[in-house]
Amino acid sequence: MSWEEHVRRVDPYIPGEQPKDKDIIKLNTNECPYPPSPAVLEAQKAYPYEAGRLYPDTEATELAESIAGFYHVPADQIFVGVGSDDVLSLAFLTLFNGGGEVLFPDITYSFYDVWASLYRIPYRQIPVDDDFRIHARDYYDAPGGVIIANPNAPTGVLESVDFVEDIVKHNPGTVVIVDEAYIDFGGTSALPLIDRYENLLVVQTCSKSRSLAGMRIGFAFGSKNIIRYLKDARFASNSYPMNGMQISLGAASFRDAAYFHEICGRVVQTRERSKEALRGLGFSFPDSKTNFIFAKHERLTGREIYEQLRNRRIYVRHWQKPRIEDHLRITIGTDDQMDTLFSALREIVETTA
Amino acid sequence: MSWEEHVRRVDPYIPGEQPKDKDIIKLNTNECPYPPSPAVLEAQKAYPYEAGRLYPDTEATELAESIAGFYHVPADQIFVGVGSDDVLSLAFLTLFNGGGEVLFPDITYSFYDVWASLYRIPYRQIPVDDDFRIHARDYYDAPGGVIIANPNAPTGVLESVDFVEDIVKHNPGTVVIVDEAYIDFGGTSALPLIDRYENLLVVQTCSKSRSLAGMRIGFAFGSKNIIRYLKDARFASNSYPMNGMQISLGAASFRDAAYFHEICGRVVQTRERSKEALRGLGFSFPDSKTNFIFAKHERLTGREIYEQLRNRRIYVRHWQKPRIEDHLRITIGTDDQMDTLFSALREIVETTA
Repeated sequence: MSWEEHVRRVDPYIPGEQPKDKDIIKLNTNECPYPPSPAVLEAQKAYPYEAGRLYPDTEATELAESIAGFYHVPADQIFVGVGSDDVLSLAFLTLFNGGGEVLFPDITYSFYDVWASLYRIPYRQIPVDDDFRIHARDYYDAPGGVIIANPNAPTGVLESVDFVEDIVKHNPGTVVIVDEAYIDFGGTSALPLIDRYENLLVVQTCSKSRSLAGMRIGFAFGSKNIIRYLKDARFASNSYPMNGMQISLGAASFRDAAYFHEICGRVVQTRERSKEALRGLGFSFPDSKTNFIFAKHERLTGREIYEQLRNRRIYVRHWQKPRIEDHLRITIGTDDQMDTLFSALREIVETTA
Repeated sequence: MSWEEHVRRVDPYIPGEQPKDKDIIKLNTNECPYPPSPAVLEAQKAYPYEAGRLYPDTEATELAESIAGFYHVPADQIFVGVGSDDVLSLAFLTLFNGGGEVLFPDITYSFYDVWASLYRIPYRQIPVDDDFRIHARDYYDAPGGVIIANPNAPTGVLESVDFVEDIVKHNPGTVVIVDEAYIDFGGTSALPLIDRYENLLVVQTCSKSRSLAGMRIGFAFGSKNIIRYLKDARFASNSYPMNGMQISLGAASFRDAAYFHEICGRVVQTRERSKEALRGLGFSFPDSKTNFIFAKHERLTGREIYEQLRNRRIYVRHWQKPRIEDHLRITIGTDDQMDTLFSALREIVETTA
């Protein structure tokens, strides 16, 4: 027997490109176009570098408490991790361990089937309808659990809190995870439901609305019980998952509520303008409540536009996958970046047969 | 069926205490008593905080290349993670997947059985001898793989590179992991063996000899093949595991070779003095090639000394476990901290019946 037969083989998730070239207009990975809060810079300057010699606080208390303060949730109902990917990965491992199929939509965050495969969790993908809507009844009595992104990605479609509750209520025997990475751009969080449903985990991130993708901070809300299970698994994997900088700079970000609201507002304003502009250029899209728009042109293929934009040094996200190959996921940038995008699209639309 | 029946239940690892009180002499978690390299502080000051809005480099190239430069190993034979705990946890999941028993010593890093339990990997613990020595032949033809800490913790005992090679040579069909967290304090690394054995993974950390426990940076060396398997599993779990600060500050640390050698030398010097002092106080211990000493008193119990030191605000590590309950693991601090420890021990030894 070869040593390679002992290896767990997996197909990794393929993230969007991170070009090093600064003059590319980067609308491909849903980052925030504005810098992190100035409070983060202050925390960076104030961080006592000598503290680096000591292990960090295993519970990341300062960060958990600043999240608790912002959302008015007790700290023992909060779990933090190295980006929401880390939180979700651990949640798959820990909470979808029953052996039954976990349900999620066919068009959604493409990491879900990767985590399920990594941990050998059976799953079933349920088609969204032609308007990219998810139907709650498709998720009743799930054999192994449910994960729903709300708003969904890459579609941008938001469902209501009642919709989430409908799914949770019909799954008392399994865990329901709601991935709210994009909730801060116009959605209503399912957070209040955690007081009524012990089996609900609500996951959010600092990568989008707090402009901290580079710091890798994700978090989740749930019952004391579900959070305790996650922490047990976490501390059975890495007892010091968050470094001192993450804890301190992340905490500073949550303390600056005004800046958070300001940048979310600016993104939403630019998004609404962008919807008008894209419609005028012959694009259609499901209404977006996120920091991106999932748009399809009336005449040109997704691949064609994607490549022509790329030639003009504008990156958007495109998947060569059934049902969505003619769509582009366009991150909302600054107003200037979007104007450059619209000019480029106008040229492409006018000059391409 | 309750949702809780879907939960993977685990017993977490219990790390050493991290007291917040600054006037405690903290010799309980093997941290370095000296600050990180001044180059780390420079990197912290220079880090462009605006970069926080963008996702970090998924491959942590700058960090991997600075490790490559220090060790003269190609970057594609290096894996980096959030502390060596993260690297080891992922290595257990990925490389010990064959279903056979993984072998490791009964007295060793107490996270090994936690990871095995978390991932449901069968394992067998092989007793070290009464001098805490490990015998290579006990690890020949391991059914599911081998993990050995060298130097071993908490014993501090170093085995030779020939010993490691003996084990690797006799396990062509499984993966052998050598955990070298403490190698920089007088040991010789098995690193050169990776060119000859495709199934060997050598794991190290920045937490001890580079004084960066708070930054959470671990790394591993192996064949291109074994590193690729680890990366595939990593990117199937979290595509951006290392944040921008970790990458940049960690890289700076590896570029300052002089400081690294200086602080390792100081720790070794203090350790050698400490051996003399401890012997004079009635302690015995296996010879240590680490930044700690695993000492037992000729008359007093481990628990007794541990508690009396604690009352004097000196923390060392003690386990109430068979075979080692009379030992204390004492981290090498500064010369001043050690002198305070020796005075306290003298008092305790003289006044305790």
